Amino acid sequence: MTERSLVSVAERVFNFSPGPAVLPLEVLERARDELLALPGVGISVLEISHRSPAFDRILEETLGDLRSLLGIGPDHEVVFLQGGASLQFSMVPMNLLRGRTQAADYVVTGTWGATAIKEARREGRVHVAWDGGTTNYDRLPAAGEIALSADPAYVHVTSNETIQGVQWKHDPDLGPAPLVCDCSSDFLSRPIDVAKYGLIYACAQKNAGVAGVTTVIIRKDLLDRSRDDLPTMLDYRTHVKNGSRPNTPPVFAVYVLGLVCRWIRDSVGGLAAMDRHNRGKAKLLYDVLDASGGFYAGHARPDCRSDMNVTFRLPDEATEKEFVKGASARGLIDLKGHRSVGGIRASIYNAMPMAGVEALRDYMLEFQQARRA
Amino acid sequence: MTERSLVSVAERVFNFSPGPAVLPLEVLERARDELLALPGVGISVLEISHRSPAFDRILEETLGDLRSLLGIGPDHEVVFLQGGASLQFSMVPMNLLRGRTQAADYVVTGTWGATAIKEARREGRVHVAWDGGTTNYDRLPAAGEIALSADPAYVHVTSNETIQGVQWKHDPDLGPAPLVCDCSSDFLSRPIDVAKYGLIYACAQKNAGVAGVTTVIIRKDLLDRSRDDLPTMLDYRTHVKNGSRPNTPPVFAVYVLGLVCRWIRDSVGGLAAMDRHNRGKAKLLYDVLDASGGFYAGHARPDCRSDMNVTFRLPDEATEKEFVKGASARGLIDLKGHRSVGGIRASIYNAMPMAGVEALRDYMLEFQQARRA
Repeated sequence: MTERSLVSVAERVFNFSPGPAVLPLEVLERARDELLALPGVGISVLEISHRSPAFDRILEETLGDLRSLLGIGPDHEVVFLQGGASLQFSMVPMNLLRGRTQAADYVVTGTWGATAIKEARREGRVHVAWDGGTTNYDRLPAAGEIALSADPAYVHVTSNETIQGVQWKHDPDLGPAPLVCDCSSDFLSRPIDVAKYGLIYACAQKNAGVAGVTTVIIRKDLLDRSRDDLPTMLDYRTHVKNGSRPNTPPVFAVYVLGLVCRWIRDSVGGLAAMDRHNRGKAKLLYDVLDASGGFYAGHARPDCRSDMNVTFRLPDEATEKEFVKGASARGLIDLKGHRSVGGIRASIYNAMPMAGVEALRDYMLEFQQARRA
Repeated sequence: MTERSLVSVAERVFNFSPGPAVLPLEVLERARDELLALPGVGISVLEISHRSPAFDRILEETLGDLRSLLGIGPDHEVVFLQGGASLQFSMVPMNLLRGRTQAADYVVTGTWGATAIKEARREGRVHVAWDGGTTNYDRLPAAGEIALSADPAYVHVTSNETIQGVQWKHDPDLGPAPLVCDCSSDFLSRPIDVAKYGLIYACAQKNAGVAGVTTVIIRKDLLDRSRDDLPTMLDYRTHVKNGSRPNTPPVFAVYVLGLVCRWIRDSVGGLAAMDRHNRGKAKLLYDVLDASGGFYAGHARPDCRSDMNVTFRLPDEATEKEFVKGASARGLIDLKGHRSVGGIRASIYNAMPMAGVEALRDYMLEFQQARRA
């Protein structure tokens, strides 16, 4: 066992992928150790019935840990869905906007917000409260720039734009309408005040687990908005009423989400500690940018910089290619930026260890030094 | 390594769950052995980007193996979706029926067909071509009993009704309209003639892998039916056009599906061999029923018996309870029938070894013997 583990760990590289992304080694090890048979159950988590006591326990513990980590109160329901955040782009307006005369307001701070609003337009009236597209989504709106409609059905924001690397640094305060937040790429990376939100959705494969499960946190009163003509599986009430099990949920993805929650709680020490760790990692890299004399040019403006996705350009594309290639040779992989922004993107989610970020920082310093010499 | 494996294997019981269900031990072992780092990749399959060369390879191999196992020709597309068969209950009529004047015809042979038709009614006109509810879904229609509408948009069948244990023994021949089949609980258990179908959908967690991925096989010409006002993620064209990756697919579930395909190909010897194995297992149990003098009373009529889910009653509920309890004590678990049918259900999908079925048969014989004594 030990020998094989060591080989596997030694083989591991630092993975800066924007998602699916790096997972805590102890989560992977636990999943591996239990993969043939869950302790005391006698079959694999991949084989247990979603109605079994074993899964009852996994679901209950995961929900309990999520509620306690995020401080989710009794006014909010938590459900686990499939289809990724992309399906939520439709489910949110199908449930909260369809058939209403009000507009849904969208604050668009990057690619994902822009994708979300497209789907909302199919379901009802939409109002663009702010759109940062004119400067290629390099910043957040100032308070005075957001123009809400008179009585929005809800206001939608994206807490962290994965592609541009722009992140709201505090829970947005945008008036009395229900605040809907796509938290996909910073969910469980820091504390948030769930009471301020009407609905939060987040796929798991950035900070919280593996692809295949999406957490939706919804304020109970908003469930009354869903109309009876919705397809059963696209109606939030179906999932709430059946405790995330109207049909077979993605059992393994829920299990891994549970393992990640426990890792944050027990090994990291909770979301405030997680946040400190993440800020510390991001600062290492942003400090290199700021001291590089423009060699590394950050995409996001300094006050909107993401602690999750550090985006920057090098002097030209040839140098960027060389940078990515050299990094890869050192075991620092998946640093190429998204094609719509270009340059470099270092995704340093929860499970990216400080050692990985330090290795990247050292490489950045050496790379620039070598160009100057 | 070896020591831990042996402990885990020894801990394993025979799992007769209707799904999620038993997986081949070699699939579990391979998944476990690779869980920290895919060979040559350096990170876990749980961490790889869905745009990475590693996942390109997994997706390509899985699609290739599926196509070759099932003999899928160039007229059909294959995509991997989320949301289970239950979401397909809606996606099928959203894409193939919405906005048409024709009716969709449903042949209802059990609980899942009855659930599918409910969702279709939301999308358009529906015609019940046959419904076996009057005899609690214990049989299939005879050829002359099916009353199709004049020009159906499609005809929907359920190849195997998991709850009632009723299975079509051949590809249904139901006229020129596109045949749509929910193959969820016998997918990859036997050869089928895909050319006869317009659309096949199947969740993975019975015979083909873990919960979280649903395979959809669709004849290319049917893609023209989808309307542009469909939510992007609910439009089959989105998934076909983007090769199952419009957003992040359930990477791990696709990986396991691939491992199961390879197991069927290399260890079992293909779908014809799989079918022989499955029929052999089912026969062991049905022979016990038939020789029991009515002690074990099969739910499905003999000519419609499922090779996947063997459903039967015992003389009374108290005896059934005792039967389940005694089985469980012997490591034969999850034999309780669905509440709507009652009694016992032994789900003996692909990965249930003959040894498990033999153990159940022996227990059944002994149990009856003890009651007689």
